[in-house]
Amino acid sequence: MTHPLLDQHRATLDGALKAIATRGYWSPYPEMPSPKVYGDTAMDDGKRAVAALTGTKLELDQPGVSGWTAADRSPYGVTLDVQYPVCSVDALIAAAEAAMPAWQQAGIDGRTGVCLEILARINRRSFEIAQAVMLTSGQGWMMAFQAGGPHAQDRGLEAVAYAYREMSFVPGQAHWEKPQGKNPALAMRKEYQVVGRGVALVIGCATFPTWNTYPGLFAALATGNAVIVKPHPASTLPAAISVKIARDVLREHGLDPNLVQLAVVDEEATRALVAHPAVKSIDFTGGPAFGRWLIEHAPGKQVYAELAGVNNVVIESSDNYKGMLRNLAFTLSLYSGQMCTTTKAILVPAEGIDTDAGRKSFDEVAADLGAAIEKFLSDPATATAVLGAIQSEATLKRIEEAAAVATVVLASKPVPHPEFPQAQVRTPVLLKTDASREGVYMQERFGPICTVVAVPGGAAALVALSERIVREQGALTVGVYSKNEPVIDAMVQATQRVGVALSINLTSGVFVNQSAAFSDFHATGANPAANASYADSAFVSNRFRVVQRRVHVAPTAAAA
Amino acid sequence: MTHPLLDQHRATLDGALKAIATRGYWSPYPEMPSPKVYGDTAMDDGKRAVAALTGTKLELDQPGVSGWTAADRSPYGVTLDVQYPVCSVDALIAAAEAAMPAWQQAGIDGRTGVCLEILARINRRSFEIAQAVMLTSGQGWMMAFQAGGPHAQDRGLEAVAYAYREMSFVPGQAHWEKPQGKNPALAMRKEYQVVGRGVALVIGCATFPTWNTYPGLFAALATGNAVIVKPHPASTLPAAISVKIARDVLREHGLDPNLVQLAVVDEEATRALVAHPAVKSIDFTGGPAFGRWLIEHAPGKQVYAELAGVNNVVIESSDNYKGMLRNLAFTLSLYSGQMCTTTKAILVPAEGIDTDAGRKSFDEVAADLGAAIEKFLSDPATATAVLGAIQSEATLKRIEEAAAVATVVLASKPVPHPEFPQAQVRTPVLLKTDASREGVYMQERFGPICTVVAVPGGAAALVALSERIVREQGALTVGVYSKNEPVIDAMVQATQRVGVALSINLTSGVFVNQSAAFSDFHATGANPAANASYADSAFVSNRFRVVQRRVHVAPTAAAA
Repeated sequence: MTHPLLDQHRATLDGALKAIATRGYWSPYPEMPSPKVYGDTAMDDGKRAVAALTGTKLELDQPGVSGWTAADRSPYGVTLDVQYPVCSVDALIAAAEAAMPAWQQAGIDGRTGVCLEILARINRRSFEIAQAVMLTSGQGWMMAFQAGGPHAQDRGLEAVAYAYREMSFVPGQAHWEKPQGKNPALAMRKEYQVVGRGVALVIGCATFPTWNTYPGLFAALATGNAVIVKPHPASTLPAAISVKIARDVLREHGLDPNLVQLAVVDEEATRALVAHPAVKSIDFTGGPAFGRWLIEHAPGKQVYAELAGVNNVVIESSDNYKGMLRNLAFTLSLYSGQMCTTTKAILVPAEGIDTDAGRKSFDEVAADLGAAIEKFLSDPATATAVLGAIQSEATLKRIEEAAAVATVVLASKPVPHPEFPQAQVRTPVLLKTDASREGVYMQERFGPICTVVAVPGGAAALVALSERIVREQGALTVGVYSKNEPVIDAMVQATQRVGVALSINLTSGVFVNQSAAFSDFHATGANPAANASYADSAFVSNRFRVVQRRVHVAPTAAAA
Repeated sequence: MTHPLLDQHRATLDGALKAIATRGYWSPYPEMPSPKVYGDTAMDDGKRAVAALTGTKLELDQPGVSGWTAADRSPYGVTLDVQYPVCSVDALIAAAEAAMPAWQQAGIDGRTGVCLEILARINRRSFEIAQAVMLTSGQGWMMAFQAGGPHAQDRGLEAVAYAYREMSFVPGQAHWEKPQGKNPALAMRKEYQVVGRGVALVIGCATFPTWNTYPGLFAALATGNAVIVKPHPASTLPAAISVKIARDVLREHGLDPNLVQLAVVDEEATRALVAHPAVKSIDFTGGPAFGRWLIEHAPGKQVYAELAGVNNVVIESSDNYKGMLRNLAFTLSLYSGQMCTTTKAILVPAEGIDTDAGRKSFDEVAADLGAAIEKFLSDPATATAVLGAIQSEATLKRIEEAAAVATVVLASKPVPHPEFPQAQVRTPVLLKTDASREGVYMQERFGPICTVVAVPGGAAALVALSERIVREQGALTVGVYSKNEPVIDAMVQATQRVGVALSINLTSGVFVNQSAAFSDFHATGANPAANASYADSAFVSNRFRVVQRRVHVAPTAAAA
C-alpha cells in the first residue's frame, strides 16, 4: 500500500524518474506565466500577497523565538520590511532532532509523497514567489518567474526523484537462505530501514534564493532528514515563503512542521550551526571564502558546495559570427552577469579568427562583441527586463573599479528603470587584455564584468589556457566556438580532463549560462567551482544510511 | 557493442546486480575449498606459490623504485621475507595520473569487464592468497580461505556491481528538444561522460588484508580512477599478490598497469599520499587515531573509513540458553576476537534472566558463557583452527593486561600449535563488571577480550545502555537475545535511532560478527565506527563525476 500523497503525484514522480534516466526535455511545472495555467488573477494575486507582507511579521510558529528581524534588501529600492522570527540555534536543532523519528517512520513513499505535495503547493504560489525573488535578488520579472519558480521547482523535483530512486533500490526485506549441503539450509529474514543521516543545514545565496536552495532542501528532506534553511539575509523572503508552505503541508498531514525550519541568524550563529554535532550535512551556495572555511571546518560532515569559478568561452573560429555575438551578448547581459554560470573570460587567438563574415582581428572580435551588447540593450525596456538590478553594493563597486583593471571595450552605464526609480541597473563592462596579464582574468569578478583575452600560440594554446583556468580557478560552464572538428575534439578532451560542462557553438536560443533540470547536470563536482552536482546519485545517496536487522526463519528449500 | 570481457563475465555481473537488489544469498565464488572446484592440486600449489616467494623480490614493475623492503610479520612465526619495491610518492602519483585518461576511455563496460576479469583471476588464486592471508594475519586456514578468498572477492564484486549500476544509469547521450510554440523547437544532442574523481588511495589493515581492501580498490577502479593500495606493513603479501594480478590483467588488455599500484611506504609517506592534491579519495580500515586524523586532514576529499567500536550484545532472556551460549562462544573465539565485528560487551540484567533452562543469575550467565568458551576450545585441533594466532604484539599485551581491568570469568591461556611451534595462540579472556564501571567496557579492547556487564534497571536500561555505547563509541554489530517482542522492538527502534545493524536471537550457524556480501550491509556509516558501508550507492556514486557536452541539432518534431 503506497501513501495517498504518492498516489496523487505518481505521474509527476514517474515523469521525473523517466526524465533523469533519459535526460530529454521534460517539466511538470509550466515555465510560461500563463493565466490559462496559473489562473487569470495569478499575477495580481502574487504581487498583492507580497505587498501584504510588507511591514508585517511572517509567522512560522517555530520554537525558541527570541525576537524578530527584517533582513531583506531590494536592489529595486523597494521597502519590504518583512519581519522574521529569530530562533536560537539550540532550539532549531532540538526541534529538528525531535521531528526526525516520525519522519523516518513515514517511509520512502510517505516522504516522497509529502515532498511532491510541497512542490505542487509551491508551484501554485509561483507568482508570489517570483515577486519575492525579483524584489530581493534583483532579477528581471520573467527570469524571477522562471528561474525562481518552475525551474527551481524542477530542480527540487529532480532531487526528490534521485532520492526516491536510490532509497527504493534498498528492499524493505529479504529472505536469505544459504544451502548447507546435507544439513538444513540457514535461513534468515532481513529487514532494511532507510534512515536519514541527521539534521541538514541548507545555506542559500542572495541571487538565486530558491533555485539554489530547493535541491539541497528536497534531497535532504526526502531522504529522511530535518532541514534548517539558512537563507542569505538579503533574499530571505522567497525562502521564508517556501519554508512556510512546507511547514503547512507537513502540519496538515500530521507531521512535525519542524522538519523544515527557517534560520534567520547572523554569521556567528551560522558557524555554530555548521559546527553543531547534530548537523550531519550542509548544502551551501555562495562565495569561495566561506565555502572553503566550510569544507575545512566540517570534518566528517557531508558538504555539498557550489562556490565560484572563472567560466570561459573559447572562440577559435565561427561559421555564424553574428549568431555567436548575439548569443554571447545575451549571456553577458542576462541578470547583469550575476549568475554562477555567466562567462567571465572569452579566449580569442591574438592573431584573430576565421568567420563566415571574413577574417576578424582580435580587436575586431572584442569591439564587435561590445557593439552586440550595446545593440541588444539599446531598447530600454529590453535592457531593464534582461539586466534586472545589481544585487549587492560589492558588485556595484566591482563594476566601478573594473575600468581600471584593463582596457575597456565597452563601459558600464546606469539604466533608469521606469517602474523602480531607485533600482540599480547597470549594463555590462567588457574588458580586453593579453593572456600574459593573468591578474586581470584569472579570478572571478562577480557581476557584469567580462574580459576578452588575446591568446597567442594558436588553437592548442587556447585549449590549454581554458583548461588551466578551470583547473586552477574552477568553472561551472565552458563554451567553444569553432568550425574545426579537431579543435572541438580537443576542447571535449580538455573539459573531460578538467571536469567541466562544455557547450559547443551556441548561436540560437540556448545559452552557455543556462542549465535545464533533468537534462543538464549543473556543475560537475569535479573542479574547484563545486564539489557536487544538481542532481545525480551522489547528491542524494549519502544523505541516508541503511540499518538492517536479521532473524532466523525456517528454510524454504529441502536439504540437498 | 559491449566489451568482450564484459560479455565473458556477463552472468557474474547480472547475478551480482540481481543480488544487490534482492539481497538474498548469492555468490559466484565457491567458499568451500573443494578440489572439484579449484583443482586437485590447488592446496599444494597455493602453499608452494607462497613458499617460493620467500626471500625473493616480488617484481611489480612499478615506477620510481628506490629500494626493496620486507615488511610482513607472521603471527605463526613463519619467515616470509618477501621483498617489495619501495616507490616514491611522486612517482606513484605521476604514474597513476598518467594512467587515468585511457582508463576513462575504456568506458563503463570496458572498466567493468576488466574488474570482473581481475576478480576471476584472483578467485583462481584463492589458495595462494589464503595462504598469504593466513600467514600474515594469523587467521586460521579455513577462515583465511573463506574470508580472505571468496568472501573478499564477493565484496569486491559487490562494489563493482554498485559502480556499474550507478554509472550505467547515466545515459551516454540524450536528445533534448524543447517546444517553442509556433517557432521551431530548440534541439540539442547531449553527451555524458563518466570520469573518475582522481587518484584513489586504499589503506588496508593487518587483520583482513583482502576483505577490507577489495571493496575500496574495486569501487575506485571501476569508476575510472587509478588506485594506490597501501597495505598494512605486517600483511603486505596478500595485497601485493592481488595488485600483481590486477597489473597483469591490465597489461594483457593493453591498459596501463599503473592503474593499480602497491605503496610499501612508511607512515610519513602515507601521510604525504593522503595530503597529496592529486589524491581525491581515501579508503581506510584501521585504528580510530589515524582514522580521525585522516577525516580531519583530508578536507574536500572523499573518505570512506572503517574505524572501531564497542560491539555489544544484549541478553534480556532466552528460549534457547545453550544455543545462545554456543553461538556467543564461537563468536568470541573466532580469530581470537580480532574482527571489527566481534562482540566487546555483553549486557545482562543485574537481576538475572529467564531462560528455557530456568532462571539464571548474572553471575551464572557470565560463568556459563565462560564454560561454553572453554568447552568449545577444549579440543586443541578445534582451538587452533578457530582461534588462529594473535596478529600483533599490542594485542598480546592487551590480553595480558586485561586480567587487571575487572573480575576475570575466564582467563586467557596459550595454546600450543602442532604445525607452527612459534605461533602466538591465545584463548579469549572473559571479564565481568558492573555497569557503573564504564572505564572497563566503554572502549574497544581489540582482540579476544570481552566483558559481561551487569546492568540494573530492567530491559529499558539494557536497551538504553546498548544505544549509548553505540552513540558514543560506535559499533559495527549489535545483537539481542530476548523472548519478549517488546524488548526486541525496543532494540529495533534503538538500533535504528543510533544506526547500527541488529542480529536477533542467533543460536545456530549464523554469528553476529559475520556479514554476508550482497545481503548484509557491513557497517552503516551512521555511527562513529564507520562513515561508509560495504556496499551501497553512497560507496560508489561520489567516486565518479559526469562531464557533459551539448550541441545544437535539428529538431525532430514539427513546430506547433
